[in-house]
Amino acid sequence: MCIFCKIASHEVPSYKIYENDHVLAFLDLSQTSIGHTLVIPKKHFNNILELDDNSAADVFKVVTYLSKKISKNLDVKNLNIINNNGPLAGQTVDHFHIHIIPRYDDDEISFNYPSHKLTEEEFNRLKEKILAN
Amino acid sequence: MCIFCKIASHEVPSYKIYENDHVLAFLDLSQTSIGHTLVIPKKHFNNILELDDNSAADVFKVVTYLSKKISKNLDVKNLNIINNNGPLAGQTVDHFHIHIIPRYDDDEISFNYPSHKLTEEEFNRLKEKILAN
Repeated sequence: MCIFCKIASHEVPSYKIYENDHVLAFLDLSQTSIGHTLVIPKKHFNNILELDDNSAADVFKVVTYLSKKISKNLDVKNLNIINNNGPLAGQTVDHFHIHIIPRYDDDEISFNYPSHKLTEEEFNRLKEKILAN
Repeated sequence: MCIFCKIASHEVPSYKIYENDHVLAFLDLSQTSIGHTLVIPKKHFNNILELDDNSAADVFKVVTYLSKKISKNLDVKNLNIINNNGPLAGQTVDHFHIHIIPRYDDDEISFNYPSHKLTEEEFNRLKEKILAN
């Protein structure tokens, strides 16, 4: 059984901060910043490509609820919500999970997002490609 | 009116790839990687700290649906799903939005996530602080 399934079934302990029938949230043992929290569906999905609609809704409602709670109780107004799918995207545990990462003035977190310009024709071709069935 | 509200009301055109009564998705004009898509609630919320439960569910269902579609039609298995809240977190448009960012072998995207170790006592104090009302 995967480690997050074990945490979801309480076979492995966690610093749990929220639980309902379908969703569990706990502090990440590797705190990227103080308050770094993981939100998972209890049911196993490898990643977002397997996630079902109801679980998507259930998990993100909890992410939203906890973002507000963490913001209020830790007094942080800036947060990144991140979900990594696949090794190239930085996923290290193959059980769908969403990171809530509070941001602070002095944190050492940085993201490098390149920006690519496309022509109108390239945008339209890309759009058609995504929309194809 | 904010730029994403104008896009949601079709006052400003976009490379739209999905729309329902509550949610719109379109290609980001600044493509961090090919297929980079934004998913927004049509209703204005500045960020996740304002987002309501139903909108959270509606938006993330569409993020999940489109992640599968983009994965299939662009033949990518790796994706980052990112939502930035507040200037410190990299938010540049103050209308809640989620980025779908396909990842490729040769992309120039990088994330720097520091890792902080806490003691059991520190974890328990942090948990109590988040759970306080």
